[in-house]
Amino acid sequence: MAPLLATYRISATERDIRARAEALAVEQSIEMPVAAIPAGRMLDDVVAKVHDLRPDGDAFRVTLALAPVTTGSEASQLLNMLFGNCSLQPEVELLDVQMPEPFARAWPGPRFGIDGLRERTGARGRPLTCSALKPQGASVEHLAHLAGTFAAAGLDVIKDDHGLANQATGPFSRRVPAVQAAVDAANRASGGRTIYAPTFSGGPRAIAEQARIAKDCGVQAALVAPMLVGVPVFIELQEMLGVPVLAHPAFAGSPRIAPPLLLGKLFRLFGADATIFPNHGGRFSFGRATCLAIADEARRPFATLAPALPVPAGGMSVERVAEMRADYGDDVMLLIGGGLLAADDIARRSREFVAAVRAEQGMP
Amino acid sequence: MAPLLATYRISATERDIRARAEALAVEQSIEMPVAAIPAGRMLDDVVAKVHDLRPDGDAFRVTLALAPVTTGSEASQLLNMLFGNCSLQPEVELLDVQMPEPFARAWPGPRFGIDGLRERTGARGRPLTCSALKPQGASVEHLAHLAGTFAAAGLDVIKDDHGLANQATGPFSRRVPAVQAAVDAANRASGGRTIYAPTFSGGPRAIAEQARIAKDCGVQAALVAPMLVGVPVFIELQEMLGVPVLAHPAFAGSPRIAPPLLLGKLFRLFGADATIFPNHGGRFSFGRATCLAIADEARRPFATLAPALPVPAGGMSVERVAEMRADYGDDVMLLIGGGLLAADDIARRSREFVAAVRAEQGMP
Repeated sequence: MAPLLATYRISATERDIRARAEALAVEQSIEMPVAAIPAGRMLDDVVAKVHDLRPDGDAFRVTLALAPVTTGSEASQLLNMLFGNCSLQPEVELLDVQMPEPFARAWPGPRFGIDGLRERTGARGRPLTCSALKPQGASVEHLAHLAGTFAAAGLDVIKDDHGLANQATGPFSRRVPAVQAAVDAANRASGGRTIYAPTFSGGPRAIAEQARIAKDCGVQAALVAPMLVGVPVFIELQEMLGVPVLAHPAFAGSPRIAPPLLLGKLFRLFGADATIFPNHGGRFSFGRATCLAIADEARRPFATLAPALPVPAGGMSVERVAEMRADYGDDVMLLIGGGLLAADDIARRSREFVAAVRAEQGMP
Repeated sequence: MAPLLATYRISATERDIRARAEALAVEQSIEMPVAAIPAGRMLDDVVAKVHDLRPDGDAFRVTLALAPVTTGSEASQLLNMLFGNCSLQPEVELLDVQMPEPFARAWPGPRFGIDGLRERTGARGRPLTCSALKPQGASVEHLAHLAGTFAAAGLDVIKDDHGLANQATGPFSRRVPAVQAAVDAANRASGGRTIYAPTFSGGPRAIAEQARIAKDCGVQAALVAPMLVGVPVFIELQEMLGVPVLAHPAFAGSPRIAPPLLLGKLFRLFGADATIFPNHGGRFSFGRATCLAIADEARRPFATLAPALPVPAGGMSVERVAEMRADYGDDVMLLIGGGLLAADDIARRSREFVAAVRAEQGMP
């Protein structure tokens, strides 16, 4: 199989860069002196090679050819080969990875993707709308009431705040059935098809129990922070649950991995049907180009993988709907949390959000 | 319970820092406008507070008081509350967290710790010695032979390279029984007590299967990269296995979390019996002070948690044994991988390593 082509940005002097790049190739494959490897298959097939090296501003852009076999086609090991040890080397950033088509095809990717989310919610020809149940510490009754309000207003997706985990104030086992029941009741009353994505968190045993509870009460989506529970757990949960998963970027911001690669391409490879990221101009400092690149990686043609839905968020407001739509087009989910919750009349503000998104199709 | 005191370094102007700190307190707790929270229990008990704020060079040092209840006493949620969303804010670094004693005591911490590792290996009054089976891609027979060589030389711990996962060239199910058998044979011949720590990787199902295989063939330790498999999986594996675990720092280097906090204090809280980190003067750029601080966090008194064994590594050599011992004292494990593997006579170099460590007790 053709190699994985992983591109790094490395700070080094022109004199040192060749040796630095060769050392990175060793670090990210065999991690021992190459001189001790006898000539033959291992040297040819397992040791990473410097595929390309060019100046990039005041640093260098180095592309390594990594052997797909070293990843064992396993998510944690893929991350390990791409950025395991060199995560400890501050002069190295991971920018991108190009995968041969047969490699990418071996991953599940989004099981539902954009089409699947549209089908479940009935949202056609426009962005999807989403809000969040907050704050943690609120009673289950309060959160369920809020979910009912959002669903009645016609939001497509209601997600738990990613801070709602399994705390004593609203444990998953009490919270999720109550919220799902409130959403179901609102759907029955309105004829709507709002879906609810609770936060799955904790260890594998806890998550398996959460999956059982979620299935029992008919939950139609899930919210998971892959970098908190572990990417392999994120993948196994998808198999257990069989519903669309929204990836949350908590704890995913700081690795020196380009956000379009991690939040766009890799989260999609690992099965995210939607990927939440901090939009520019909110509480976070990602620039517009970075945000558009995340959305592009989530949606562009990529082997046989379904496109994932980009979800710009993080301090958005109803006033920004038109601008976000102009930025991202229709294949996007607009997530406004605090912007609705802080309103004097949450129900009305939610209806205004829904109307603002539907307005341009003449479907208010 | 008293709050968790989490200290961050924040880049901001003097004019903005108070508002920036207050915003961080909101981001790391309720993540919605405080104005929308009614006065009462939630505002008092759940919203994080700015506990301290002081200049720190050209930035500021901000300590937040976080409510322990928001963590649900769960590892992924603790990381979420400490650094979930603000990992996406490049102006914020997490420096440290102080935990009230009852909070820390609720975590398992190291089940074996330094004493347990000494007991299993019979290593007393001196640093422990460790090497690594490499490279990935080598045959199982080669790796087993290498393990036998290391064990015969009297190394205390033999670990898999963290790049040895479950690849087709040496899958866990074939590799681990073969290596353990080679170590057992060498122990029988020498009367030694070398233990072997294979790499556990993949999803929860794969790891449970690996645990079964490891138990069946009498494996006495484990190597895990918590940031690759997920911290909650790391914790559950400890319960399944019942043997000491060595934490590997792969993928753990890049978060803007101070290494002594993540690799020292938190990995120990999450149960690492030993924590591997890149020593200064090797292939990585951690400075000496950072390395000593990691070792200090691993070993210092911390609630009722057993001390964990610091394992400086990453391009070390037999020539540095005396210096590392002077740096770290005796409660340390010295890990030399490539430095042994690149020798013309690996067996002799391994014996020299063991002798160098034992020399100072007059136990050559």
